[in-house]
Amino acid sequence: MAQFKETTVQTKPIYDGKVISLQVDDVTLPNGKTSKREIVKHPGAVSVIPITENNKIIFVKQYRKPLEKTLVEIPAGKLEMGEKPEVTALRELEEETGYTTESLTYVTSFYTSPGFADEIMYIYKTNTLKKVEQPKPLDEDEFVELMELTLEEAEQLIVEQEIHDAKTIYAILYLKYKGLR
Amino acid sequence: MAQFKETTVQTKPIYDGKVISLQVDDVTLPNGKTSKREIVKHPGAVSVIPITENNKIIFVKQYRKPLEKTLVEIPAGKLEMGEKPEVTALRELEEETGYTTESLTYVTSFYTSPGFADEIMYIYKTNTLKKVEQPKPLDEDEFVELMELTLEEAEQLIVEQEIHDAKTIYAILYLKYKGLR
Repeated sequence: MAQFKETTVQTKPIYDGKVISLQVDDVTLPNGKTSKREIVKHPGAVSVIPITENNKIIFVKQYRKPLEKTLVEIPAGKLEMGEKPEVTALRELEEETGYTTESLTYVTSFYTSPGFADEIMYIYKTNTLKKVEQPKPLDEDEFVELMELTLEEAEQLIVEQEIHDAKTIYAILYLKYKGLR
Repeated sequence: MAQFKETTVQTKPIYDGKVISLQVDDVTLPNGKTSKREIVKHPGAVSVIPITENNKIIFVKQYRKPLEKTLVEIPAGKLEMGEKPEVTALRELEEETGYTTESLTYVTSFYTSPGFADEIMYIYKTNTLKKVEQPKPLDEDEFVELMELTLEEAEQLIVEQEIHDAKTIYAILYLKYKGLR
């Protein structure tokens, strides 16, 4: 497959923001022709499937400006520079749900949109939640509402398209396949 | 949840490309403060899980410039303006694999990265493939290699991280859960 590699001729930075940056690369294609690749750079993200002792899953409901609508998702957040995904997972779990855990299980990871972005999403699971007395606060531009749902209730929200993002759709199929414990 | 809505104060277009565009919105947050939202606009994408009569899954191996590496994925492509996802599914299946089908089953859909992009991914499945005599050609900047794998072989490629994107990781879990037929 080495012959399919695209070689960078030039990188043009377009935008450098607080979450993403955008660049356009001129590349040489395998057939010698040239093309442009629009590339979004993202620090990566981590999410957690938190399962309570009553076999409910904790979700966060939040407004997603790119979609102009509210989604119900598993807790998630961006990786800080140089941070291990497990550390991000625990921080986001605490900030968004008020829980922590001593036992985090790795579920999977995936690139969300390899055609135009380098974002990777790590997914963890825990079913040993511990309440934090004074949890770390949310980011100042973050507003979420917690929801505890059974797996069946969550599946119904997929039908209603309130649950509708990659990591959460994956998480629910994973729990159906593997069970909650 | 209406109270969590973010109201657009101003939209600043940053870039308008061939696959994506980027804009930065100034928004009013639920607490009255303002913030910026970096938003990638994408036309949406469609993928197909093609299963042969020998219970193999057809994948495409292709170089992904944002990751600077080659991934093994289920066939997929972008929605054209105003196109129904089923039409995109059949076109991409034919262009990338040389097969078509008269029976496409809807599997799921999800937003790939709702924090910064509006891209939606539709996933279909077919296990009634028909060879096309003279299939439509690939886009001129597209180079793919076909691979037919058993479900077990595909799972091994997840371990080796050659299969590593959201739609394909989801597809394999779906087939494990539901079976290939």
